Amino acid sequence: MLVSVTYNGKLPLVGSNEKKQKTRFDATLDPAAPAKYASPMDVVLESVAACSMMDIIMILGKKKKEVVAIRADVEAERAETHPRVFTSIRIVYTLTSPDCRAVDFRKAVELSIDKYCSVAAMIRNSGCSITWSAELA
Amino acid sequence: MLVSVTYNGKLPLVGSNEKKQKTRFDATLDPAAPAKYASPMDVVLESVAACSMMDIIMILGKKKKEVVAIRADVEAERAETHPRVFTSIRIVYTLTSPDCRAVDFRKAVELSIDKYCSVAAMIRNSGCSITWSAELA
Repeated sequence: MLVSVTYNGKLPLVGSNEKKQKTRFDATLDPAAPAKYASPMDVVLESVAACSMMDIIMILGKKKKEVVAIRADVEAERAETHPRVFTSIRIVYTLTSPDCRAVDFRKAVELSIDKYCSVAAMIRNSGCSITWSAELA
Repeated sequence: MLVSVTYNGKLPLVGSNEKKQKTRFDATLDPAAPAKYASPMDVVLESVAACSMMDIIMILGKKKKEVVAIRADVEAERAETHPRVFTSIRIVYTLTSPDCRAVDFRKAVELSIDKYCSVAAMIRNSGCSITWSAELA
């Protein structure tokens, strides 16, 4: 995989992947210019949920379950000393579906977090705990 | 830290941090609806560079060096089997500055990657190698 990130004298930083799709990363370095976009660590935390949600959407799609909506609420603790890594992450998944049972939803989340989700695997391998719950809306 | 990610029946997923700043995550699940935004793994890879560039901008700012532009080109290898984690990452940083020497730039990159950058630390702790070079444009 190839990506680039550019800074041209002002924030946000602009990330670009091989298809030139853009992602913006921001910070409030100057109080007169508050951030318009999320920080890299916010984005990494969102990526854990987003990566697993992609799996979950595919798994439930293969099971012919209708996914009206999924929401993930993510809470993380960070180490107090530099480099301030994530030490624990808790994800609460909520599914809106007319035909998917809670047990099927939980199975899909479990398959993602334990087997398929690359971001969750890396975060867990880094020494950070990941716990989750999954409920129907 | 608190973030959320939502899916309302169609991609992209929308990430939102505590300040409601948005980040989008996409995938091509249906060839008729190609992705408009980057994938979660693209975004994580960009986050490694973005996180360190925030540090580098601050470090060079404290040293009163003028940063006209910085670019990071990032290449990653992934494991061939699920969960397909990153196994090695190579970052090439390029600085445009009228008054910063290459040695100062490299020192700033080194400080970030070895000490301050939270994303780089987590990726390295996960078992992925990170190597880098830093040159003036």
